[in-house]
Amino acid sequence: MDNKIKGLAILGSTGSVGRQTLDVVRSFSEAFSVIGLAAGYNVDLLTREAEEFHPKVVSCQEPGDALASSLPSGCQIVSEEELVSHPDVDMVVAASVGKAGLKPIIAAIQAGKTVVLANKEPIVMAGEIVMEEAKRNGVAILPVDSEPSAIWQCLRGEDKELSRIIITASGGPFRNRTPDQLFTVTPEEALKHPTWSMGRKITIDSATLMNKGFEVIESRWLFDLPWEKIDVVIHPQSIIHAMVEFVDGSVKAQLSPPDMRMPIQHALFYPQRMENASLTRFNPVETGSLTFEELDVSRYPCFKLALEAGKKGSTYPAVLSAADDVAVELFLDGAIGFTAIPNLVEYVLSKHNPASNPDIETILEIDDWARKMAYEWIR
Amino acid sequence: MDNKIKGLAILGSTGSVGRQTLDVVRSFSEAFSVIGLAAGYNVDLLTREAEEFHPKVVSCQEPGDALASSLPSGCQIVSEEELVSHPDVDMVVAASVGKAGLKPIIAAIQAGKTVVLANKEPIVMAGEIVMEEAKRNGVAILPVDSEPSAIWQCLRGEDKELSRIIITASGGPFRNRTPDQLFTVTPEEALKHPTWSMGRKITIDSATLMNKGFEVIESRWLFDLPWEKIDVVIHPQSIIHAMVEFVDGSVKAQLSPPDMRMPIQHALFYPQRMENASLTRFNPVETGSLTFEELDVSRYPCFKLALEAGKKGSTYPAVLSAADDVAVELFLDGAIGFTAIPNLVEYVLSKHNPASNPDIETILEIDDWARKMAYEWIR
Repeated sequence: MDNKIKGLAILGSTGSVGRQTLDVVRSFSEAFSVIGLAAGYNVDLLTREAEEFHPKVVSCQEPGDALASSLPSGCQIVSEEELVSHPDVDMVVAASVGKAGLKPIIAAIQAGKTVVLANKEPIVMAGEIVMEEAKRNGVAILPVDSEPSAIWQCLRGEDKELSRIIITASGGPFRNRTPDQLFTVTPEEALKHPTWSMGRKITIDSATLMNKGFEVIESRWLFDLPWEKIDVVIHPQSIIHAMVEFVDGSVKAQLSPPDMRMPIQHALFYPQRMENASLTRFNPVETGSLTFEELDVSRYPCFKLALEAGKKGSTYPAVLSAADDVAVELFLDGAIGFTAIPNLVEYVLSKHNPASNPDIETILEIDDWARKMAYEWIR
Repeated sequence: MDNKIKGLAILGSTGSVGRQTLDVVRSFSEAFSVIGLAAGYNVDLLTREAEEFHPKVVSCQEPGDALASSLPSGCQIVSEEELVSHPDVDMVVAASVGKAGLKPIIAAIQAGKTVVLANKEPIVMAGEIVMEEAKRNGVAILPVDSEPSAIWQCLRGEDKELSRIIITASGGPFRNRTPDQLFTVTPEEALKHPTWSMGRKITIDSATLMNKGFEVIESRWLFDLPWEKIDVVIHPQSIIHAMVEFVDGSVKAQLSPPDMRMPIQHALFYPQRMENASLTRFNPVETGSLTFEELDVSRYPCFKLALEAGKKGSTYPAVLSAADDVAVELFLDGAIGFTAIPNLVEYVLSKHNPASNPDIETILEIDDWARKMAYEWIR
């Protein structure tokens, strides 16, 4: 094993993936030094994390005096851009929710840091820019999301002679409901994912399969694949996360019980694999059966919209992501129904005039525009 | 692609794997030159193959005048050892049945040829010697058997940080029979394998699961694994051929419809993968379900005997292989019942005094002894 201690910056350290990343760090405390922790608004948890991991720098959307006074001595409050660029940082774990991660990810790439990517909206919004920037700076983007992680693992040691990738989808909690029954779905029901325990936004995106659409877009950019080589299949057990079919017809699949710590650990240690007894193992006999069903796109309008926006390219995916963000928020607040999520997203996409060759600033302006349009739609 | 035409020698060219190897050669005629073909007793088919592929040398257990007169001009009859050592041969496809391949495989290794291994008895009989000889001569042994091929594919690009391999077994045609019902199994029933179309010997070995025991021994040697890291699970669909569980809990599986041409092609072109439209693709939705059951060792005494012989090592696996060879022959001839196969093998193993540090000659002498003991048992 490479004995150099890796310096980590974690964006979104108080969120679901951020906390699980710290859990992996706890299991391998001699391998990592937590240099920076960035959170949104959960000052309490950020403070506790800082007490445990003694980062040199922290960042928070809502700093205030409470944070400053409760931090361990020597720990400075900085901007997210400063945090990811800290000279002791080797890897930036991008685990924020939504668009918040975009600018810090770009800053991390420009500072030459390896990016461990869990936050998929930035790559949905600006996949081409992010990947070009990574290439220009010779920076690796290592996926943590279980499906792209699975593809990455299946491609290890292979020459990308692939005929297609097959991403699996659990189908979400409403896989067996009729379209009519979806009208009455409550936020509480939608937040109960059948196989994964995740943050609120991604859990709703999983119920609508918008999340699966995002993963197709993410995989298109991460692995530089044409759209026609990316398929999605329903696999309710969430054990096989993705498969790669090679040109000779051989298929490789990656399997593990649904636990984000596995792909997090895989990315943090890559190319090494480290023993971790606290991770549950796949037991084929106990699992009994791995099943597959066709993805009926007509049942999942959000998935269809995501694919259309991804294929149109330009600023459409940014609009998709922003409109979905607002729609999910409105649904969780009880302001709109579950089936209104795709209607709202479709409306905003239909009003969009794409920009050609957008830069990050343009994409963020269009994100703002899309959010305004989304709020207009419910008025 | 490496444009050098590969010179092939095929041992057992008229058998099931030999014929399928020639089928792959037909699909990629510009990549290969068939230098040598060796067969057992099927002079007719060997002659037709020689007419089609124009080998420089052929070998046959039963040459006679018929073969000599019907061969294309310029094609010489030689011994198997001469055939595999021919200077134009790059790769030797070892696809004989039973012990016949052992000496030619050793000769191929000593001549520095890459060995594409489909014939598992030689590695069961003399795994340690074969692997040491390969190491000494810097020769690669590339597996063709679907399970070791799957392990090999899953290990591509990985550092062997594995916690176990899981070989799958279809369970054979009698998976759901009671032990009593096995007494009446006829050769015709046992020759109907539920998922694979193969030669007669291996089909019976698959019905008794002796073949699965052989694969465990084969994998132990090919991948230099301790016995406790090799598990077997029943998987009736024969789509997943093997899985590798890494130390971090991630599992990789290799999947493909049961068709030997896939692993044959994989080994012939390794490390490249080549498009082959004639190979059926795995369709998850059509397959619907991949199931797993525990292997109940008490139902498969041959599997248990194979593992015990493998773990004892020395000359026990050679006795196992020889006794099984006779037992299968006697069963196919109607001389003994299906359930007598393990009884015969167990009897011969029980009479064996192992030799220490055996060489190939000793192993072949013990093979002769075991065959004699097996025939004695039925008298």
